[in-house]
Amino acid sequence: MDVRELVGQARLGKPRAVARLISLVENAVDNPAEGGAGPAGGDRASRALREAMAELATGAARPHTARVIGLTGSPGVGKSTSTGMLIRAFRRRGSRVGVLAVDPSSPFTGGALLGDRVRMQDHATDPEVFIRSMSSRGHLGGLAWATPQALRVLEAAGCDVILVETVGVGQAEVDIARLADTTVVILAPGMGDGVQAAKAGILEVADVLVVNKADRDGVQATVRELRTMTSLVEAPWRPPIVTTVASKGEGADDLLAALDKHQAYLEESGEARRRRLARARDEIEAIALAQLRSRFSALHRDSLDTLAERLLGAEIDPYTAADDLIAALG
Amino acid sequence: MDVRELVGQARLGKPRAVARLISLVENAVDNPAEGGAGPAGGDRASRALREAMAELATGAARPHTARVIGLTGSPGVGKSTSTGMLIRAFRRRGSRVGVLAVDPSSPFTGGALLGDRVRMQDHATDPEVFIRSMSSRGHLGGLAWATPQALRVLEAAGCDVILVETVGVGQAEVDIARLADTTVVILAPGMGDGVQAAKAGILEVADVLVVNKADRDGVQATVRELRTMTSLVEAPWRPPIVTTVASKGEGADDLLAALDKHQAYLEESGEARRRRLARARDEIEAIALAQLRSRFSALHRDSLDTLAERLLGAEIDPYTAADDLIAALG
Repeated sequence: MDVRELVGQARLGKPRAVARLISLVENAVDNPAEGGAGPAGGDRASRALREAMAELATGAARPHTARVIGLTGSPGVGKSTSTGMLIRAFRRRGSRVGVLAVDPSSPFTGGALLGDRVRMQDHATDPEVFIRSMSSRGHLGGLAWATPQALRVLEAAGCDVILVETVGVGQAEVDIARLADTTVVILAPGMGDGVQAAKAGILEVADVLVVNKADRDGVQATVRELRTMTSLVEAPWRPPIVTTVASKGEGADDLLAALDKHQAYLEESGEARRRRLARARDEIEAIALAQLRSRFSALHRDSLDTLAERLLGAEIDPYTAADDLIAALG
Repeated sequence: MDVRELVGQARLGKPRAVARLISLVENAVDNPAEGGAGPAGGDRASRALREAMAELATGAARPHTARVIGLTGSPGVGKSTSTGMLIRAFRRRGSRVGVLAVDPSSPFTGGALLGDRVRMQDHATDPEVFIRSMSSRGHLGGLAWATPQALRVLEAAGCDVILVETVGVGQAEVDIARLADTTVVILAPGMGDGVQAAKAGILEVADVLVVNKADRDGVQATVRELRTMTSLVEAPWRPPIVTTVASKGEGADDLLAALDKHQAYLEESGEARRRRLARARDEIEAIALAQLRSRFSALHRDSLDTLAERLLGAEIDPYTAADDLIAALG
């Protein structure tokens, strides 16, 4: 099947075509060496991926726009269960739902994602739900590079809502917050030090705060602490705090209401467009950097190796070496 | 104090000078906008940092070479306690020890690192131990960029061993494994799903496996599983499995013996030099990419913004936009 045909099938919502297109993205991250050298040389993406993205971004059928909702939080707070609850809530409205379970804990993939798949299997036969887990191997900016392109595929497949689930540790949740229209940070009561640490920077990324497992001890204390933190927010949007018991579906309506309120705020304030523009900038920049990086790799055998030898030999400093490397790009 | 003087003081092992130089590195990551525009323009690093790195890398006093040992593992396995145990073990040998506690869970910094500092405070008055926690904010490749430069500072300060501690989730531990001479992956028995997931990819990064909290139930089962995994390794180095109770200092000698054995293997096989060369390549590449990235930022108001608008307007696809952006660099 050629790329245009594949994109056409994806636009019709065929799950296999959607899966194959996302695999194109994922494989490009995993195997930069396989990236076909385009006319510019050293291009990390395969030719097929380039063609697919061109068709998706500028093809005759203008892509559908999806609401992108990021879900993040420490391991164990119930992200997958919350994602499941939101899938059901949006399905009750008749929305087509995409889920991208992004695993930043590469190279430690496997177990956790299989777990997610199992937990989400009650949606496996619903043709209006696309669930995809994506791992990004250890390449610089892998997730920042791959996720916007995977979103493009899910949008083309007609998803109204795309839930992006990622572990809230490290670079990943910063990337997700930059990518999503609305970022939901999930906490659970009584998680100890981890949550205490997490709270410190939470307001940098959270649009909506969820305290899940609200049938456990300590939920009121956690809510109180969060309320104290958010009361200091002077930005036009103050993150609401929603309590849920995702495993029982409790709080789904409250969470949906908070998400809708944020969406309305985004539209009214013009922030929606600003976020989408920022996302487009990030997407372009990530692709450009990846291309430059693979051109560096192509220089390995000569310039970069020589420069590394000279750095080890104390003949050059790393900044001068970097200048030389950039100059060698020509 | 000028930069040369600062480097001179650091070489004499003055803690304040060491701390100030590492702060130079860290601030450059946190505030790329403050990077003085060098002759090339748009340089992310401040001029002072460039000078410092030039002096450290190529100055008259050839820098001391340190053994770099990475420690990684899931939250809760006892990384800081293990680091503490290794500090004491290397101090008993008379080694000067540097510790870089790298926090990848930015923007959620604060709590955890303060915790580390408290736990390590019994070394606070030892002039032969340099402990520094470093957080890297949400910039692409932040840790990959900053850590090698911070290592340079600690090496110059005469550290014989540098322990780099990082949470084993996400990109961070891949970066650390690329950086370290020896990577120690720490596990604990009975951690549930997290560890199961972690095990899948563990052999990609581990040179030495530690099962800490070996006084807990389930330690034999964990060791057995790891042994089954490592028995399949066909590479010349098969990661040994060491059991420890770091909180009581138990297993310190075994761990030290395993580290020494790996170090001997590195030297004999020529792998030590290969790793150092790879590290130098990564350092140069990370600096070059950061410089290109900040040049992109400088183009924001014109090219990148225009390209993002056109991408949103379906007039251009992301790859063509990236090509245009690279071309705009000139």
